[in-house]
Amino acid sequence: MNLILLNKEDFVGQNLVRLSGRRQEHILKIQRAEIGARLRVGEINGLQGIGEIISLGEHELEMNIQLDQQPPEALPITLLLALPRPKMLKRILQSVSSLGVKQIYLINSYRVDKSFWGSPLLQPEKLQEQLLLGLEQARDTRLAEIHLCPRFKPFVEDELPGIAKGTTAYVAHPGAETPCPSPLTQKTTLAIGPEGGFIPYEVEKLQHCGFLPISLGERILRVETAVPVLLSRLTP
Amino acid sequence: MNLILLNKEDFVGQNLVRLSGRRQEHILKIQRAEIGARLRVGEINGLQGIGEIISLGEHELEMNIQLDQQPPEALPITLLLALPRPKMLKRILQSVSSLGVKQIYLINSYRVDKSFWGSPLLQPEKLQEQLLLGLEQARDTRLAEIHLCPRFKPFVEDELPGIAKGTTAYVAHPGAETPCPSPLTQKTTLAIGPEGGFIPYEVEKLQHCGFLPISLGERILRVETAVPVLLSRLTP
Repeated sequence: MNLILLNKEDFVGQNLVRLSGRRQEHILKIQRAEIGARLRVGEINGLQGIGEIISLGEHELEMNIQLDQQPPEALPITLLLALPRPKMLKRILQSVSSLGVKQIYLINSYRVDKSFWGSPLLQPEKLQEQLLLGLEQARDTRLAEIHLCPRFKPFVEDELPGIAKGTTAYVAHPGAETPCPSPLTQKTTLAIGPEGGFIPYEVEKLQHCGFLPISLGERILRVETAVPVLLSRLTP
Repeated sequence: MNLILLNKEDFVGQNLVRLSGRRQEHILKIQRAEIGARLRVGEINGLQGIGEIISLGEHELEMNIQLDQQPPEALPITLLLALPRPKMLKRILQSVSSLGVKQIYLINSYRVDKSFWGSPLLQPEKLQEQLLLGLEQARDTRLAEIHLCPRFKPFVEDELPGIAKGTTAYVAHPGAETPCPSPLTQKTTLAIGPEGGFIPYEVEKLQHCGFLPISLGERILRVETAVPVLLSRLTP
């Protein structure tokens, strides 16, 4: 936890917050902070700054806060990701949240196991939990938006043209002839398939939407490795 | 398993292999291959090519193989990694193995929990298991070498100068002034600290050995995200 994230409910005065639960425990037991300690804090979707502990009990603490810094810049990439298995989804969401992605579309694909769409992890508050862990890690405050798109064809035909409009769009596809390009400054939409890849029909539908298939070379990477590699290759 | 890896013991003839156990089960139950199927195979630390199934039983299969292709190129990076917690080490080893790293030094650091060095995962055959999973994923045959260096000071003073000699050496250090450079063609040595980073004394010792501290920007990433990001940033 490199940043203590605050939400509206934490505020008990204009510059005064009261914390209990996971964050309070972390500050008390892991960071072993004491009264007077100054910690990095940030308001969800807002500014960040410093919080000074003014009271510290076993179950509650209070901080005077001063928020005056912008969060780090967002990554100019919209990510389309074939829904991974729940355990991997958790890690990937934390990872892409820490890397600064702000628009995430979890989409269906032929090789996505249908049962994944029934996972309790897809409840909004569970998804948000993973995003928050990524923000705390990276010292960011701006939450990503996650869109669930359990039907491939209607998503690609009806929604995707609007999403990809005005961006350079790529689909990561092992075996594609075009290598992953160098960092871009323009906005990018990046689609990453499931383990085993998108099927040809899906690649065609994405190409029809303006997506260029790109490859990372001979090596086929697991999704959780390919995601940070592609995101870092495509951004300056 | 995008490649079936073969070892010396599998060979029952010059071009004939017999498999049982995990690989045989995978071919039978996951790939649902039948007699006559042609699968991608490779010999550990050797060539790769095609294997044709000529017999297939419940517990054993035989393939005629033809090995005539070189494995993908190795990454020209020697990786020094502060020993991560065992669960994370597994995933990181799979990931760096799939990315093509061939020299891995697991080193100590002040923030490495001492208990990690006693993990059964550090037994050579357990480490190799993780590397093999990465190679199977990436369709590579060349195993990385893993060196265990449980004492920081003697390692840095006695061994590291020889390891880093003739390479460009970087230590990933959040807050460093120099941003992570663009892809290099020369050989590189890259040191990545534990969660929480190397302590100043350790960074100084590395600098004394010629390592330049570099940073990925404002965001602080978990080790398992930072590793693929740094490896892909530093290689063409």
